[in-house]
Amino acid sequence: MMPTNMRVLAIDPGYDRLGVAVLDKNLKNGDLLFSTCIITEKADDFSVRMKHIAHKVENLLLTYKPTIVALERLYFNTNQKTALQVAEVRGVMVYLAKTHSCTLVEYTPQEIKVAVTGYGKSDKKQVAFMVKRLITNVKEGALDDEYDAIAIGITALARER
Amino acid sequence: MMPTNMRVLAIDPGYDRLGVAVLDKNLKNGDLLFSTCIITEKADDFSVRMKHIAHKVENLLLTYKPTIVALERLYFNTNQKTALQVAEVRGVMVYLAKTHSCTLVEYTPQEIKVAVTGYGKSDKKQVAFMVKRLITNVKEGALDDEYDAIAIGITALARER
Repeated sequence: MMPTNMRVLAIDPGYDRLGVAVLDKNLKNGDLLFSTCIITEKADDFSVRMKHIAHKVENLLLTYKPTIVALERLYFNTNQKTALQVAEVRGVMVYLAKTHSCTLVEYTPQEIKVAVTGYGKSDKKQVAFMVKRLITNVKEGALDDEYDAIAIGITALARER
Repeated sequence: MMPTNMRVLAIDPGYDRLGVAVLDKNLKNGDLLFSTCIITEKADDFSVRMKHIAHKVENLLLTYKPTIVALERLYFNTNQKTALQVAEVRGVMVYLAKTHSCTLVEYTPQEIKVAVTGYGKSDKKQVAFMVKRLITNVKEGALDDEYDAIAIGITALARER
């Protein structure tokens, strides 16, 4: 009997650049269905950028119909203003996940690093290296945010049943 | 000629309690059409509480069709975890305002205090006192969050054209 299909929309939230990846548990030759980095116009109002991101993510929810939305847990970084704005975008992602009846899962940065590289203190380069090893069809020249989203998706596939 | 009607949905964001108020520029005898404090279940997941709040606010947008959504600017308080979760709720409020084609306006706590009490360092008690003087139909026993939302609405009526 085939297991129920598990499809993950993984999101690395941000308002400048937001990484997204769609991964499927049952795919052969790499689990990546889609990934990109949604980029917003710096000149636009925050609320316009937010709406742009939400519109793109909602389209992905409608197109790929994921069962799970995976997000990184947010911690404070050195720039508190940035942290609040990222949290605002993250809140909209939580809201969209719920309105599209997805299960919401969240991981700490350390959990993601362990799932992808086996080591909780690995750096961005190691994460990107292992993402390319684990997923055969990552496109060349992807931005960090896209790799991070794929890493979050790999974590979800490894941890959720 | 009558001026175009200006209707404000004012929101004091929170995930535990969220104050909302609807005020109308052209009403006589007080501008308050509606106000309440939306309270969520502490036992529920954050995402469930978020969805509950968003559902209630979306109903207000559909019922009252405001032209403006007014929010307080968020600053860091002593509890950083709380600040991030409030920011997530606030982000959803920004998103809902945009999807319902409202103009979004934001004020600092000081701007709100000046608009309501004439003094930028007034305390919660003074704000509540002046809210009751300015708006004749505030119901008895309203919670602080509800007074804060009405104060944000009064600020919007005073400042926006």
